Amino acid sequence: MSSPLKITILGCHSATPKNNAFPTAQVVEVRGQLILVDCGEGTQIRLRQNSIKFNQIKHILISHLHGDHFYGLIGFLSTLSLLNRKNTLKIYAPVGAKEIIDIQLKYSKSFLTYPLEVNELNSTEPIQIIDHDKFSVKTIPLDHRVYTNGFLITEKPGDRKLNIEEVEKYPIDKVYYKKIVKGEDIVLENGEIIPNSKLTFPPEPTKSYAFCSDTAFKPDIVPIIKGATALYHESTFLEINEDLCAKTKHSTAKQAGIIAAKAEVGHLILGHYSARYKNLEMFREEAKNVFDNVLLAKTGEVFSF
Amino acid sequence: MSSPLKITILGCHSATPKNNAFPTAQVVEVRGQLILVDCGEGTQIRLRQNSIKFNQIKHILISHLHGDHFYGLIGFLSTLSLLNRKNTLKIYAPVGAKEIIDIQLKYSKSFLTYPLEVNELNSTEPIQIIDHDKFSVKTIPLDHRVYTNGFLITEKPGDRKLNIEEVEKYPIDKVYYKKIVKGEDIVLENGEIIPNSKLTFPPEPTKSYAFCSDTAFKPDIVPIIKGATALYHESTFLEINEDLCAKTKHSTAKQAGIIAAKAEVGHLILGHYSARYKNLEMFREEAKNVFDNVLLAKTGEVFSF
Repeated sequence: MSSPLKITILGCHSATPKNNAFPTAQVVEVRGQLILVDCGEGTQIRLRQNSIKFNQIKHILISHLHGDHFYGLIGFLSTLSLLNRKNTLKIYAPVGAKEIIDIQLKYSKSFLTYPLEVNELNSTEPIQIIDHDKFSVKTIPLDHRVYTNGFLITEKPGDRKLNIEEVEKYPIDKVYYKKIVKGEDIVLENGEIIPNSKLTFPPEPTKSYAFCSDTAFKPDIVPIIKGATALYHESTFLEINEDLCAKTKHSTAKQAGIIAAKAEVGHLILGHYSARYKNLEMFREEAKNVFDNVLLAKTGEVFSF
Repeated sequence: MSSPLKITILGCHSATPKNNAFPTAQVVEVRGQLILVDCGEGTQIRLRQNSIKFNQIKHILISHLHGDHFYGLIGFLSTLSLLNRKNTLKIYAPVGAKEIIDIQLKYSKSFLTYPLEVNELNSTEPIQIIDHDKFSVKTIPLDHRVYTNGFLITEKPGDRKLNIEEVEKYPIDKVYYKKIVKGEDIVLENGEIIPNSKLTFPPEPTKSYAFCSDTAFKPDIVPIIKGATALYHESTFLEINEDLCAKTKHSTAKQAGIIAAKAEVGHLILGHYSARYKNLEMFREEAKNVFDNVLLAKTGEVFSF
């Protein structure tokens, strides 16, 4: 069995932080790798509350430079230094992030104990930004008041599966099994070549997670996120306040549902709720009119796929 | 009775924020005016937890630009805009604060809904920075790894007290009482002048609060804070780790006690504890060897003097 694709919601509310209504931050675990996606104020406290080891985070993706998505970044970076981190941290964020980080380090006369790689984004086309051996990340250009990207995180295929019945028909030592699941053919002592396809089944299908916050309704993104295992799509408003979407460049729960349906994703996770609504179930109901598998992001919630 | 001098501890731990061990931030209430002193990450959440109305804060004092004393500032300023604040906010902070605020507003394409006055400090002498009709604030130059000020907040004298026995000896209408407590003499209908000193007692003695964080042991500050009603003095370490004080420019609880004793303050409040100590009572015990009235800052604690 491949490891689950796991999304931990550290915060999923829009704008002003309140008791238990924290701004956007998520940890995505993909094939054992932890990726921090957005980093609103107080993210480091909620990482601790969720017992997530700071040092295991090697990649941070920042969608845009509005405060509710990145004011917790500088504090997190500083704390990593206090914890004497040594391994490289890679950040992917809009142009400006580096200047904002550097100026704060300069005035506090601080230096980081670890190499920090800030990769600044400015492309308005979907581009691949990470090609790791366990996963890849592609940008999803969104439509917001400032330059904003969503992110499509896709697992790399895992090992092939041993067809043990077939394998045992040949004199193959168990030490070769590791090579076989990596896709290698086997040459027997008599010179006979057994093609890998005979000895294995294909690996588990890969999973993918699309994170889309913040954005106005943008059907252009559908081809990029097509068939994703799960889609997080912001739903700041309900349909009754659709007029506010144009002004603020946000989406309704119904619009999120339409995107999920068009893209034929497995699950839709809603979030980035405006503080004006008391009952979050209304978001689910609204999206369910157009798409079936609707989940509501809540602080501390963990989704596994 | 004059209103109490009230200190609300929003956070009082050094460096990395943890569950209920938040970085430095305090609200000082002096003659009904709220002053925010330092603003570590998450301050706005703890302001809410303590039911402090954001809009009543008109002055913010920042001691220095280390993250654990000001990473919550930009988030608080942004939230005030979301709340549609209109009245002026005055910040007093080391040089650099304005640049850090401005660059974050620039990249988020945000503007504030209220006038923000950032007064940057660079004097290494104690200077008066606020002369409000209810209180004044003077800097206390400290000795830390970056440019740092403590702050002495002093009440302005309240009204004089009516000596009602004396007042009633004269034909003085009650409508004049308000003027008498403000210090005015009274001219009777027959032209006789009754000097104010005959009609009133002096006002309540004024109170003052000295905030000193972060600093190495610095006895130079004693004349500035002499006789303060209360002194908050950092005590990052216990004597057993005094060697760390020189390196990090912090103080021990005993050193804080010595400053309190020399300055003959009314009360000493300790805080800014290093995370290495589990039992905070040890700080109190150590300081008590040299000074009697020792209080321990704790998250959410309110001290009234």
